[in-house]
Amino acid sequence: MKFDLAAWSADKLARVEQALSAWVVADAPAGLGEAMRYAVLDGGKRLRPLLVFAACEAAHGDEAAALRAACAAELIHAYSLVHDDLPCMDNDVLRRGKPTVHVKFGQAQALLAGDALQALAFELLAPDEALVPAPVQAALCRLLARSAGHAGMAGGQAIDLASVGRVLTEPQLREMHRRKTGALLQASVMMGAACGVVTDTAHSALQEYGAAMGLAFQVVDDILDVTADSAALGKTVGKDAAHSKPTYVSLLGLERSRDHALQLLDEAQQALARSGLPDTRALGALATMVVHREN
Amino acid sequence: MKFDLAAWSADKLARVEQALSAWVVADAPAGLGEAMRYAVLDGGKRLRPLLVFAACEAAHGDEAAALRAACAAELIHAYSLVHDDLPCMDNDVLRRGKPTVHVKFGQAQALLAGDALQALAFELLAPDEALVPAPVQAALCRLLARSAGHAGMAGGQAIDLASVGRVLTEPQLREMHRRKTGALLQASVMMGAACGVVTDTAHSALQEYGAAMGLAFQVVDDILDVTADSAALGKTVGKDAAHSKPTYVSLLGLERSRDHALQLLDEAQQALARSGLPDTRALGALATMVVHREN
Repeated sequence: MKFDLAAWSADKLARVEQALSAWVVADAPAGLGEAMRYAVLDGGKRLRPLLVFAACEAAHGDEAAALRAACAAELIHAYSLVHDDLPCMDNDVLRRGKPTVHVKFGQAQALLAGDALQALAFELLAPDEALVPAPVQAALCRLLARSAGHAGMAGGQAIDLASVGRVLTEPQLREMHRRKTGALLQASVMMGAACGVVTDTAHSALQEYGAAMGLAFQVVDDILDVTADSAALGKTVGKDAAHSKPTYVSLLGLERSRDHALQLLDEAQQALARSGLPDTRALGALATMVVHREN
Repeated sequence: MKFDLAAWSADKLARVEQALSAWVVADAPAGLGEAMRYAVLDGGKRLRPLLVFAACEAAHGDEAAALRAACAAELIHAYSLVHDDLPCMDNDVLRRGKPTVHVKFGQAQALLAGDALQALAFELLAPDEALVPAPVQAALCRLLARSAGHAGMAGGQAIDLASVGRVLTEPQLREMHRRKTGALLQASVMMGAACGVVTDTAHSALQEYGAAMGLAFQVVDDILDVTADSAALGKTVGKDAAHSKPTYVSLLGLERSRDHALQLLDEAQQALARSGLPDTRALGALATMVVHREN
């Protein structure tokens, strides 16, 4: 019987939305809470939370810990978008079909909202010990911090900044994306696994799955930036080319980029097959969705 | 015999500088590491690290954990200064006697350096378990995240933003500073204590000490903004007034502000006396230094 990703996702997404709405506080002072909620709620594919849940299921992990990890990963993603959209970065005015946070709340509030969302991500991972065992809390903080910082997302953004108007080789482009987008996607998978216990073999396989799926996500992002329209994508299209940013499409062309995405999907699925985990259907379906999505 | 704070501090400061230099990586990509190091190294009083060490000593805590907590607190402080100096915030060009990070490296790199420093703070608190026990890691992450986020520093910044040009009551001003500066100073004390084990009585007393000393720090900051000169202070003076920001001096005047700082110092010392901890000399000397400092 075919795995029904939509049905599987529906329950998880409902729990994530409810939890984010509860945890991203409205009562933060002086409009900060409003800006934080605007940045996080009612938008996004919630891919990172779904990856956390899928890996947690594969590892028979603790769902309460996974819910916190899922929301934390999404908060890091949301904060990165807020900062990335600022005038000193991409200067973007449209995100998920709505005005960006700084357009709506001003640059200073957007800056603070991003900063506070990053802190809140770690706060969610470190609740009272009665809620999540300390070793799991520590492991989740470790994974998230490494993926968000200089070795991961922030480092990738710095390479991105420095690459405007330059031609990168494929290894350079891959390294940029591995950090900028891939690190947090892979960390989402590994955080899900850290909510349970997996063998070393499964751990390595999940890391390979996360790396391949994370890169595939970015290759498809580059493709959609060229082929989709703004309404479907919910954000400004063609912005990479407009900003003279190197992309897979500018490097390999559209056809070879599509082939590359399919090859990475194959790598991700093979890694799952090697994992020895009994049920990786959700992880497999998510990788397929990442590559075949239209927005 | 009088406690010699300078002698006590010298060893701690050397270890903090060495650790920060090792942990704030130079090899972060595309100039990011350089901007991060510029923001953190060779500057600052390192008050937060000293508070961590002093509280750790009082609690007979683990020094390896304290060193990580000390550096993590300083990284949060450093990132907040980088973001606070940005043009969309205070638009300041001088910090610790040097050009601010965005003047030197550009706004985008300054934004990313701040973001990466916050992530690095949590990365330092969550190393491999062989280095720091998981319950201590989790406790440190919990304390730091809460003090840095919407309920602490970022929330205080939001109130600060919203208060420009307004007259605040003393309770409102206190609440702003409790979050903006006080939360991280208090968390530094409590992180030091979390590296060891303290009684509930000592825990409460240290919280009261941290609250009083944290507020005293800000009252004195407001005084120095009026009375010091830029060379001694290493940053632009008179900037609060120039930005029409409410301060203790604008609210209470200079003399009553000084009296208030001394009263808070007394509260801090009384809390230490109540703590039941055998050796709180360093904590006591730091509170005295905070109130009687000249920069």
